[in-house]
Amino acid sequence: MRSLLLSRRDLDFLLYEWLDVESLTKRERFAEHGRDTFDAALDLATDVATEHFATHRKISDSAEPTFDGETVTIPSEVKAALEVFAETGIVGAGMDSSVGGLQMPAVVAQACFAWFHAANVGTAAYPFLTIAAANLLRAHGTPEQIETWVTPMVEGRYFGTMCLSEPQAGSSLADVTTRAEPRDDGTHRLTGNKMWISGGEHDLSENIVHLVLAKIPGGPAGVKGISLFVVPRILENGERNDVALAGLNHKMGYRGTVNTLLNFGEGRSTPGGEPGAVGYLVGEPHRGLSYMFHMMNEARVGVGAGATALGYAGYLTALDYARTRPQGRLAGAKDPTSPQVPIIAHADVRRMLLAAKSYVEGALALNLYCGRLLDEETTGETDDDRSRANLLLEVLTPVAKSWPSQWCLAANDLAIQILGGYGYTREYDVEQLYRDNRLNAIHEGTHGIQGLDLLGRKVVMSGGAGLELLTTTIGETVARARGAGGESEELAGALDAAVARVGEVTAALWAAGDPAVTLANSSVYLEAVGHVVVAWMWVEQFLAADGHDGDFYDGKRAAARYFLRYELPKVGPQLDLLASLDRTTLDVRDEWF
Amino acid sequence: MRSLLLSRRDLDFLLYEWLDVESLTKRERFAEHGRDTFDAALDLATDVATEHFATHRKISDSAEPTFDGETVTIPSEVKAALEVFAETGIVGAGMDSSVGGLQMPAVVAQACFAWFHAANVGTAAYPFLTIAAANLLRAHGTPEQIETWVTPMVEGRYFGTMCLSEPQAGSSLADVTTRAEPRDDGTHRLTGNKMWISGGEHDLSENIVHLVLAKIPGGPAGVKGISLFVVPRILENGERNDVALAGLNHKMGYRGTVNTLLNFGEGRSTPGGEPGAVGYLVGEPHRGLSYMFHMMNEARVGVGAGATALGYAGYLTALDYARTRPQGRLAGAKDPTSPQVPIIAHADVRRMLLAAKSYVEGALALNLYCGRLLDEETTGETDDDRSRANLLLEVLTPVAKSWPSQWCLAANDLAIQILGGYGYTREYDVEQLYRDNRLNAIHEGTHGIQGLDLLGRKVVMSGGAGLELLTTTIGETVARARGAGGESEELAGALDAAVARVGEVTAALWAAGDPAVTLANSSVYLEAVGHVVVAWMWVEQFLAADGHDGDFYDGKRAAARYFLRYELPKVGPQLDLLASLDRTTLDVRDEWF
Repeated sequence: MRSLLLSRRDLDFLLYEWLDVESLTKRERFAEHGRDTFDAALDLATDVATEHFATHRKISDSAEPTFDGETVTIPSEVKAALEVFAETGIVGAGMDSSVGGLQMPAVVAQACFAWFHAANVGTAAYPFLTIAAANLLRAHGTPEQIETWVTPMVEGRYFGTMCLSEPQAGSSLADVTTRAEPRDDGTHRLTGNKMWISGGEHDLSENIVHLVLAKIPGGPAGVKGISLFVVPRILENGERNDVALAGLNHKMGYRGTVNTLLNFGEGRSTPGGEPGAVGYLVGEPHRGLSYMFHMMNEARVGVGAGATALGYAGYLTALDYARTRPQGRLAGAKDPTSPQVPIIAHADVRRMLLAAKSYVEGALALNLYCGRLLDEETTGETDDDRSRANLLLEVLTPVAKSWPSQWCLAANDLAIQILGGYGYTREYDVEQLYRDNRLNAIHEGTHGIQGLDLLGRKVVMSGGAGLELLTTTIGETVARARGAGGESEELAGALDAAVARVGEVTAALWAAGDPAVTLANSSVYLEAVGHVVVAWMWVEQFLAADGHDGDFYDGKRAAARYFLRYELPKVGPQLDLLASLDRTTLDVRDEWF
Repeated sequence: MRSLLLSRRDLDFLLYEWLDVESLTKRERFAEHGRDTFDAALDLATDVATEHFATHRKISDSAEPTFDGETVTIPSEVKAALEVFAETGIVGAGMDSSVGGLQMPAVVAQACFAWFHAANVGTAAYPFLTIAAANLLRAHGTPEQIETWVTPMVEGRYFGTMCLSEPQAGSSLADVTTRAEPRDDGTHRLTGNKMWISGGEHDLSENIVHLVLAKIPGGPAGVKGISLFVVPRILENGERNDVALAGLNHKMGYRGTVNTLLNFGEGRSTPGGEPGAVGYLVGEPHRGLSYMFHMMNEARVGVGAGATALGYAGYLTALDYARTRPQGRLAGAKDPTSPQVPIIAHADVRRMLLAAKSYVEGALALNLYCGRLLDEETTGETDDDRSRANLLLEVLTPVAKSWPSQWCLAANDLAIQILGGYGYTREYDVEQLYRDNRLNAIHEGTHGIQGLDLLGRKVVMSGGAGLELLTTTIGETVARARGAGGESEELAGALDAAVARVGEVTAALWAAGDPAVTLANSSVYLEAVGHVVVAWMWVEQFLAADGHDGDFYDGKRAAARYFLRYELPKVGPQLDLLASLDRTTLDVRDEWF
């Protein structure tokens, strides 16, 4: 039976026929691997996701975590699935063998994780947060901290969280007020409230390792005075730390992941009689936000990957329905006694399926391309290769986060529409996938924040080298497509013109002389650049399919055609608007609303 | 306190300053009315909606109807609210005084009803369906049927339903299989299953009047053999009719409205020992679908009105939040010790608010314009006035249904985004408003069906007179805007060019010579025409605000500007695509997906 989660055929195409992931095995870090170990990991991920995660997706949604004032209760299927997951070793897929990891390429690890996101994003969130926390500690913790906290995370015994936001400080982390008082023994005592903490309290693991942003008194104001701490739920001596659950957030979707408001140091169980939760400083004082941003970039690409997987599952579910649901007849065959046709026969349904296919497969290509860049950044042959990969990944990160969050959600919306009334019911999966996915434009930096990051920082960083590198890299694809001739040439022309226009418009925006004007419509800029980037991904896929016959490749060509004809032209009016330095959003006054 | 449901100031502007609804009181049908009675009805609607409907919106969502196999249980607040509603007389607001109605203009009735949709769409659905059923019977029933069924509906004692769909026949009503066997006493006995029946079973009213589409054996196949029947839940002798609840549909939103699968004639309680549910034919045999479509047009405009109200409530909720939630600082004021600004100070939040304002106020204008056309259709001074109004309303109906369903949903989506993490929780209202609104692109004819209706029927009906009338009518607005000079002239130019292009593209589409090609992208056509129509509504509002000072009018001007600059240009690539007679969606094959 065809999977309704992801297409393994598509993953194989992207990994092996396009990104040439096998060639990575020639590098020292991945020398133990080969296509056989990659395939085995993908097979295992597919099986565990299908048999242990997808099976309780609906349960996670309808029986969300509850808190009786003492204990959080989560359906038993979640713990059971996570126990199986721990045995796979996938938490450490991309990590060093020294911490118990499998030392696989990031791009392969990402392809494995995609199955879990597609199957059950609520349950998958626990290990994914744990991976992010482990990577942060691996990068900035002491060997002892890594031994104490990371190793049991890789073993699946400890889970991690990210404690950034507070009720008054979400997008604005400068306003964090959680305090960390130094103690003579080198530890700190933390007091404050942290909001939106996923996985903040549960009994799914032996321990929970909170990574907490807090201010050490006397440090600089704002983001420059933020430090990073490990605050375990259970201390090494086995006592409960002073981290108390203040309440659960009840969400529209993503309900399987317990989301909490945590109180640090409210005094319920102060170890040693001192007020505050025991925390261990990670790295240097006041550098916490920069450490966190290292993780955040990875997390942002991960959010995009999760959004993609949810959209993909919605698309495949709608495709399956469209092939099997009979309804209506084609124009010109109106005999009401003739049998009804499957709805995929209707042009409008095919239009919706093509749109969804172009969104989810385009986004998956972008996700894996970013994963491949991550591998290049860490194992590229020359310094220049590594720094180029790093820069390109920096520029692409806001797009890789936002574009799938917007357009794979649109794929989920189309999936509901294709199923019609059935799609609107909770008997089918598509409405849950939609609700789960709606979070992704919000967390880890909203859509608006990503727009500011792209236009305000990334495209102008290093004197504009970021945008230049993106332009050159797309230009190489355009040149190849022109060389291939035929339809590729037509697609290349459209992509090339759009990239050139992005360059002109970016220059015009930055020539405005007033950052408020430059950035007023940065979300529109983000969306336009996003469509251009995904058009590039489609030209790349068109080229990778070139010279191959068969339904799969014909499907890639049709989706590329759809994206270049129906989607890419949408950027025209967006770029025109940006070029006009429109002041409508700046000039409108609060009282006018 | 400013209402978070709708803006009375905006309603007053649209009704009195733009549509000159007061002038209707000169017509005989409305002679008993004046601005005072209209205002009193609006005040009453506002109060009852605010105090009795909005107050249980969340309860309706979290405690959806349940069925234990015997009885449907609905939260008691619903019945209590509907009892208060019945006392207002608003069910009969637009109906003749002969059936107990208030004989108010349709446009005023619509404005009153908008408050209930905004406050609690789940509870409002019961009277909304009842009004539709009553109007259908008023138009096609016998005087006796009207006396028996309509009068108690107007009194709020009976509720109505529409039983069209079946599990195998949703968009394709030709495939309805419910049978209606004639009996010697002039009644019929119905057997079959009806799916998606809102309000199909409950104890909120003394009786439920089902209006059912069924086939009388021996009639023509397909839609030409469909007849319409009244099938009451309780017969006139007090016995239960053979209409059994087979199950409830559990939906993503709109949960307050019980949605049912009904079995007609399954034999549980056959009156007189004869198999089947007792039904009374309405009008002539085999003409049921044309009767139903009369109601359907009204219902489609009503769906658009409901979508608008939900979007409007979301917009006002987000606006209120944006004014009161402090977060971050403006570029250039990065001192982290300075106070945070309310998020409405950020350009991107203002962009989202302007977008939402332009969608919901543009849609409300369109809804009320349609209501005004309905009044013109029924009470216009000359035959020509009435038939022009009828034709224009026919053309606008698919747009008035679909555009708000798409773009006021987008306003709900923006409202979630403005509230950020809070918007994603069920503590706030915006996610429920989103979920409720998602239904509107599906029921009463999906988005795709509306596109086929617009491009396949409406714009070509009467030899193209429909599109011509729309074009001429918009042309009159353009001429007035040109005459007004200044910024109006700029807006008029953009609108005029877009309308001209729609005309050209429509001709090109119909010149294709193959209906499959013409209609392949009819949804795209629907969306493009929708944006042009709403741009027209904004130029109209800009003109109505012309010469008036103050925040309210400045807000109208800013939203008009936003819509013409940010939104209208989106139709350019859509119309270019349509003009190219693109075959991508026709040529893609099932196996390629």
